[in-house]
Amino acid sequence: MKIKTEQIHFSEGLSLESGEKLDSFDLIIESYGELNESKSNAILLCHAFSGNHHAAGEDEELGIGWWDQIVGPNKAIDTEKYYVVCCNNLGGCAGSSGPTTINAATNKVFGKDFPLVTVDDWVNSQKMLMDKLDIPYWHLVAGGSLGGMQALQWSIAYPDNIKKAGIFAAAAKSSTQNIAMNEVARESIRKDKNFHNGDYYDHNVTPKNGIKTARMLGHITYLSEELMDSRFGRKFQDEASKVDQDVDFEVENYLQYKGEKFSEFFDANSYILMTKAMDGYDAGKDRNLEEAMENIKAELLIVGFYSDWLYPAERGKEIQIAGMNNNIKSSFVVFDGEHGHDSFLFHSTEYSNVIKKFIES
Amino acid sequence: MKIKTEQIHFSEGLSLESGEKLDSFDLIIESYGELNESKSNAILLCHAFSGNHHAAGEDEELGIGWWDQIVGPNKAIDTEKYYVVCCNNLGGCAGSSGPTTINAATNKVFGKDFPLVTVDDWVNSQKMLMDKLDIPYWHLVAGGSLGGMQALQWSIAYPDNIKKAGIFAAAAKSSTQNIAMNEVARESIRKDKNFHNGDYYDHNVTPKNGIKTARMLGHITYLSEELMDSRFGRKFQDEASKVDQDVDFEVENYLQYKGEKFSEFFDANSYILMTKAMDGYDAGKDRNLEEAMENIKAELLIVGFYSDWLYPAERGKEIQIAGMNNNIKSSFVVFDGEHGHDSFLFHSTEYSNVIKKFIES
Repeated sequence: MKIKTEQIHFSEGLSLESGEKLDSFDLIIESYGELNESKSNAILLCHAFSGNHHAAGEDEELGIGWWDQIVGPNKAIDTEKYYVVCCNNLGGCAGSSGPTTINAATNKVFGKDFPLVTVDDWVNSQKMLMDKLDIPYWHLVAGGSLGGMQALQWSIAYPDNIKKAGIFAAAAKSSTQNIAMNEVARESIRKDKNFHNGDYYDHNVTPKNGIKTARMLGHITYLSEELMDSRFGRKFQDEASKVDQDVDFEVENYLQYKGEKFSEFFDANSYILMTKAMDGYDAGKDRNLEEAMENIKAELLIVGFYSDWLYPAERGKEIQIAGMNNNIKSSFVVFDGEHGHDSFLFHSTEYSNVIKKFIES
Repeated sequence: MKIKTEQIHFSEGLSLESGEKLDSFDLIIESYGELNESKSNAILLCHAFSGNHHAAGEDEELGIGWWDQIVGPNKAIDTEKYYVVCCNNLGGCAGSSGPTTINAATNKVFGKDFPLVTVDDWVNSQKMLMDKLDIPYWHLVAGGSLGGMQALQWSIAYPDNIKKAGIFAAAAKSSTQNIAMNEVARESIRKDKNFHNGDYYDHNVTPKNGIKTARMLGHITYLSEELMDSRFGRKFQDEASKVDQDVDFEVENYLQYKGEKFSEFFDANSYILMTKAMDGYDAGKDRNLEEAMENIKAELLIVGFYSDWLYPAERGKEIQIAGMNNNIKSSFVVFDGEHGHDSFLFHSTEYSNVIKKFIES
């Protein structure tokens, strides 16, 4: 599969939900497949909190795309038939404007001064991307977790520019527990001695320890308890392969390893910004979910997983019920999901078939 | 209610499960009520991971005891009828020998050199306490969470010295997810710049930030998602009472406050030691749970709570089934529990009645 990577500049800037303005910004995107003549086959993929624009295929630096099991030739989201686009979200750290990129106004990295962006802002920036790509509407906007929130928000904000929304392992708002978990992660980053109140770039250090702890916690919430139990149980880590002498159990070694790897590339200010955006999203804010959804024209596919305890399946049901009360065409499907919250990332025949049928219906 | 506090010295020392030996040690205990003439009314309470000997009544320094809703005159565990004893566990930081106490061999605080202790070691030290108090057997050993593990271990290790065991919100072993969560907490402590590899006493600092983050995470796991949601929802913290400007939501402010308070008194090495003991406990290790329980003579009351996701009610059922297969007299009761894992701490008419009936049966 051919991967096309582009850096797209938006000199017109973006007015943010916070009231601030980004004078200009860049989005890095990947695309797969070809836009057809009638421009009716474009699909937008929205990534989850720590994801990026590399959704599918293999890249020398970025490895295998985060949704490669679902997106590709003859896969559920078929790049032979559809023109599929994915961008790194504003505020991310994989190439789009964010804390690690240069602020044209100061000629220094934005760092902690990159403005707070929200799910609404992301959707607005993606609408600008759509216009720039000369696409009249998305046949589908889809994503899991925080990506699913964007798909829902697309259907609310731009009802005339989206035909279908795929909302997977997501919710119309973060729960109190979601916010609480994210706050622990942020606290761990902020209190890292190398954080320097967000100005670590000036000190040529990164708050790796804080990011590592944050990711270790995140990782637990992405997996189901059953999967952790069947994979690691209470097995002890053998001495020779311990990452650290403080480790006793295999599961500790695994989390240490995963956390360490993540801390080597993910930016701390991006971590804080992305989790704040996730916590802050509430589709029904200032009204209620049913009212917020009343103008939706897109057809919705809402998928939950029984093994997901971060965004349990009932959260999907709330969207479905609000949709039904608005006579929106929608389907709500719950799969077992072996992988907890991460289940949305993995192919299963049933899951892929449901997505494929939904796209082609 | 009269609270009697004693510091008891054991010059004979204790051989630990690890193979190490504590040459001598102290236990600080509280007791309530009076031992009767036949010495048949003694009850031992075992505290959870961050608890201490102050189980009931009000103390100027320690506040209200951790099980005050259950233990006291005319309460479920009735101090008018029973002689109730609670000790701070070895390795704790509330007065018993542990990382913060003086090592007689070096005349310096033990610090990180305090040996690893286990649930088995605690039970052995509590047996020595029983002998020192000249009590022939406990009418009841009871506790919640890590305290419930001790109650179970008592019934296994000393079948002739315990009549009844109350095992609340506990398990016969920690799950993979329990271990994983504790490892995140430990990682946060170890990576605090003031931890100094456990030798922070020498530097006149404490790794407060690490302990705070650890406790914030712990606190989430003790509460049910429903309780957090109904108490805090997605309410914003008002500006005037924010503990920190990084806080947006009430739940963040609450966790920050709770974590900060805890970090002011709890010892970091104790935190690591206590969680390692919890992770390490497996009643059926080297055999299986059923075989481990085959010599139990005590009657068991096993209580779980549907809202507890840290030690879900099914964990109690595993103990019950192993007990039934050994023809042990046992009852397994599951309550809704409003407070998640912490539900074992709180009085409800049903819960207190079940405990009372069990003690008096």
